[in-house]
Amino acid sequence: MKPPSALATLIDALRALPGVGPKSAHRIAYHLMQHDRPGAERLGNALLNATSSLHHCAKCNTFTEADICETCADEERDASLLCVVETPADQAMLEQTMTYKGFYFVLMGRLSPLDGIGPREIHFDRLMKRATDGAVREVVLATNFTNEGEATAHYIAQALKARGLAVSRLARGVPVGGELEYVDAGTIARAVLDRRSV
Amino acid sequence: MKPPSALATLIDALRALPGVGPKSAHRIAYHLMQHDRPGAERLGNALLNATSSLHHCAKCNTFTEADICETCADEERDASLLCVVETPADQAMLEQTMTYKGFYFVLMGRLSPLDGIGPREIHFDRLMKRATDGAVREVVLATNFTNEGEATAHYIAQALKARGLAVSRLARGVPVGGELEYVDAGTIARAVLDRRSV
Repeated sequence: MKPPSALATLIDALRALPGVGPKSAHRIAYHLMQHDRPGAERLGNALLNATSSLHHCAKCNTFTEADICETCADEERDASLLCVVETPADQAMLEQTMTYKGFYFVLMGRLSPLDGIGPREIHFDRLMKRATDGAVREVVLATNFTNEGEATAHYIAQALKARGLAVSRLARGVPVGGELEYVDAGTIARAVLDRRSV
Repeated sequence: MKPPSALATLIDALRALPGVGPKSAHRIAYHLMQHDRPGAERLGNALLNATSSLHHCAKCNTFTEADICETCADEERDASLLCVVETPADQAMLEQTMTYKGFYFVLMGRLSPLDGIGPREIHFDRLMKRATDGAVREVVLATNFTNEGEATAHYIAQALKARGLAVSRLARGVPVGGELEYVDAGTIARAVLDRRSV
């Protein structure tokens, strides 16, 4: 007994969602068809609309429907600062802090040679061109503090310094509200090495 | 900083998927737009196609693209047997066992008054009409052995017996391969009460 073909196609297509295997795909398909057809229709339209209308910002590489994203089009920002982040979500977190008023470059990933993600996949050449546009004075590296994020920051820093740009990295240390007893040794070691005079 | 509207709409629409909250919706949307646009497009089309072409089988109530589903159209089946299941997935499991050769009725749910699911939601009237078509002699109740499944079976059994039909329920007992030490007491109690002579 096979499910009708429209249902079988849907179950198969649902596997494109990250973390969804055959069992969950079945469950999701039946749920949508039985209990939420308007939601399924809305999702179908949203997917088609997004795939056709979203592309990368010509300046910062984030997702946008226009040529240049809202952030890059903001003339109030400080053109001498360029912040490099891995994802639009990271950029959104930085914006929330209200402490940074320059422009961004979104890598849309991080170097990870084992997964086949090299300089080309993180748009390294476009970043170099963007950073050497004459206006940028300092590049703030805000990739994650994971192994891959650190390696990515190191790789970019070397290339930018060779071109005579000032390069900085977000400070590492004990998180706000952190109790030393519960912070991992690596973080404390970093906080000791990077200690600052008060 | 807001995501572009096509992306915001997609993130919002993804919440229709069961178990997907705002964080996962973000992650899924970025994953699809960054790494799997063909998959997103396929999924969008599959959702729209399924919502427009799937409806319920006029006889057994399962999902089908035709008026009558393949199983109900199968003339080799025994018309004197009607098996009541909660979902198409349950039906598929029964079919896999190759032990049942009658027809089905799919409730597409179970009685659950607290969730507002009453006789109307499980298509009780259509089941009654289907079971009293003159050809059906025995109704096999194969709802789940959960509280709600048992209550559903009880409710349907009362109504069918009042109409003079033979009603049976799947046997309960120790599962094949089960070791008594690890089987719950309720199951063993059932197996003792329902013990059969050999």
